[in-house]
Amino acid sequence: VTLSAATGALVDKGNHRHFMLKEIYEQPTVVGQTLSSYIDPLNLRIVLQDLCFDPKTISRVTLIACGTSYYAAMVAKYWIEHYAHIPVDVDIASEFRYRAPVLSQGGLAVFISQSGETADTLAALRHCKQAGQTVAAIVNVPESTMAREADMVFPIHAGPEIGVASTKAFTCQLSVLAALAIGFGVLRKTIDRSLEATLVQALSEVPSRMAEVLHHDEKLRDIAADLANARDVLYLGRGTDYPIALEGALKLKEISYIHAEGYAAGELKHGPIALIDQAVPIVVIAPMGPLFEKTVSNMEEAIARGGKVILMSCKDGLKNHSDMAMASIELPQVHPMATPLLYALPVQLLAYHTAVHKGTDVDQPRNLAKSVTVE
Amino acid sequence: VTLSAATGALVDKGNHRHFMLKEIYEQPTVVGQTLSSYIDPLNLRIVLQDLCFDPKTISRVTLIACGTSYYAAMVAKYWIEHYAHIPVDVDIASEFRYRAPVLSQGGLAVFISQSGETADTLAALRHCKQAGQTVAAIVNVPESTMAREADMVFPIHAGPEIGVASTKAFTCQLSVLAALAIGFGVLRKTIDRSLEATLVQALSEVPSRMAEVLHHDEKLRDIAADLANARDVLYLGRGTDYPIALEGALKLKEISYIHAEGYAAGELKHGPIALIDQAVPIVVIAPMGPLFEKTVSNMEEAIARGGKVILMSCKDGLKNHSDMAMASIELPQVHPMATPLLYALPVQLLAYHTAVHKGTDVDQPRNLAKSVTVE
Repeated sequence: VTLSAATGALVDKGNHRHFMLKEIYEQPTVVGQTLSSYIDPLNLRIVLQDLCFDPKTISRVTLIACGTSYYAAMVAKYWIEHYAHIPVDVDIASEFRYRAPVLSQGGLAVFISQSGETADTLAALRHCKQAGQTVAAIVNVPESTMAREADMVFPIHAGPEIGVASTKAFTCQLSVLAALAIGFGVLRKTIDRSLEATLVQALSEVPSRMAEVLHHDEKLRDIAADLANARDVLYLGRGTDYPIALEGALKLKEISYIHAEGYAAGELKHGPIALIDQAVPIVVIAPMGPLFEKTVSNMEEAIARGGKVILMSCKDGLKNHSDMAMASIELPQVHPMATPLLYALPVQLLAYHTAVHKGTDVDQPRNLAKSVTVE
Repeated sequence: VTLSAATGALVDKGNHRHFMLKEIYEQPTVVGQTLSSYIDPLNLRIVLQDLCFDPKTISRVTLIACGTSYYAAMVAKYWIEHYAHIPVDVDIASEFRYRAPVLSQGGLAVFISQSGETADTLAALRHCKQAGQTVAAIVNVPESTMAREADMVFPIHAGPEIGVASTKAFTCQLSVLAALAIGFGVLRKTIDRSLEATLVQALSEVPSRMAEVLHHDEKLRDIAADLANARDVLYLGRGTDYPIALEGALKLKEISYIHAEGYAAGELKHGPIALIDQAVPIVVIAPMGPLFEKTVSNMEEAIARGGKVILMSCKDGLKNHSDMAMASIELPQVHPMATPLLYALPVQLLAYHTAVHKGTDVDQPRNLAKSVTVE
């Protein structure tokens, strides 16, 4: 599939009130499209064609991005370290380019940008290329400057994204990064055939699981009616759900102008818990898994201080805990690798409906540009 | 100097209204005490005694901490990479211990904790020790569990810290980390004799420069009278000032319960700028230096959207820019290595006075404990 950077005028909102909502709803389709370029669902294998580097000899991966794409990079750090056993650095492009980073010889530097034109990310790409790193770009626009200058391009096939607040580009970036993490692990033999099959199966089910998640749209709209009155919101998660908490907070900030902040759940007690009272709703992202009990314990501390929790978990996770939450959203129970992809959707919808309630300009939020091509 | 973990009852507030204010004012003294264990000010040399590892052969440094100590670690990453050319990972302890970190053979893992008892940091220390890393602890309490279990202890000599919101422990941690970065650089020959002398000179002047900064107490109290009415505050910085922005926001959150958030200035355009209107003051930490113009350009964008800026810079930095700010604080012009140590003070005082204005319990903020010894 080759997609072009169509202009907004050529793209239609369809039956949706805003481009952002349309793009949220497109995710099962575009994530499916993206995955189909990286996995073979029949044989449950990862298919990475023509790599210009050998994942077996990569000493280190450096992931560089800004904004939402940076949060995708944070998720990928967990995946690549866990599944491919390659050490990973993540950095904000505007910080990376002005510090004196010590790059490993034989390192792979991966740049993530929807537009492929983000000024700071592009400058960091050029810096790494000059420093002898192998340079890859994960972009939505194949004709972009980053795509042209990188040694290797991994396209995300999200289609034109018009809403300024990124949604489908984020989950498509995650899809590519998940496939790369598994693919690197297979080549490095840190993933055996059976685990590869399990992980590819988990990814291949993501589009249909995403479609299920979209059924909660109405419930999220109801919760958003409450959230629209909040002056501050905290989002908590651990592991790969920590960047989803950051992304959920960023979405709310961007389009509803409510001051939301994402936190690693374990950091709550080191300061931000002082903020919590009945006026500060807390969105807790807690899929069932090895970190569930730890996150729930942080949630209970927040509730004990009067915090009102919106709990996002699966059926088993909600069983003993939904009573204490002000509201809860039940998501499908999936493999841990699929959770960041799925849990991205309810935080997007929550931000969307909150903004609609508040009457802000969802597709063109104040002060923001779609792609930041100046520093 | 050997200090004991005296209980609060034995420590007196002196003439100060709160322990926190006393501890802020102690910083010139305790930073001086701390530095005197690590530098020889007469010969302008770093003195690191009896290292149990060889900095020349360290493959990587991993810095692990929680809360304020984590922000000290973030500053140290810049220093160690810049001056000693050793790659550095920083991680939040509660995240590090539950992910699958890929540790380099021959790595040094450094754990930073005021109390030396922080549960997540201690668990991470034990994990790294078992994984064969050389383990060092930077602690204020020499009898603490971390001090006992580490291969090597770097004490911070801050004296008992009673205020729940950490102040002097933070700047003493920074002092030790600065000395380690320079010391490692000298041993690795990435710092020559003349640069060592320049940097040690810069550090040795920090106590007297801090005393000058404390003279702005009254002006900060006036600014705080305004800030106390804000519902949300942003803090911006780049490079080593980015963690100071995070720390400033954390301090304000902890004791005034105002929702403050720190941001890398370059990330402003990638989302948080949507929050900015006349009701959201922005604290900009912008010492003169290579990043000054970039940070100022972000500040101008914020002002163009109605943002009210409190600018912290030095004389030259304020010359052409203080007019556009709602308020400004002039700090001494110092070597870039000294700026995070100095700029920590006005953000502490700003938080302190804001909390006093609001009438919150400064030394015992709601929901917080001094050391987090449970997970």
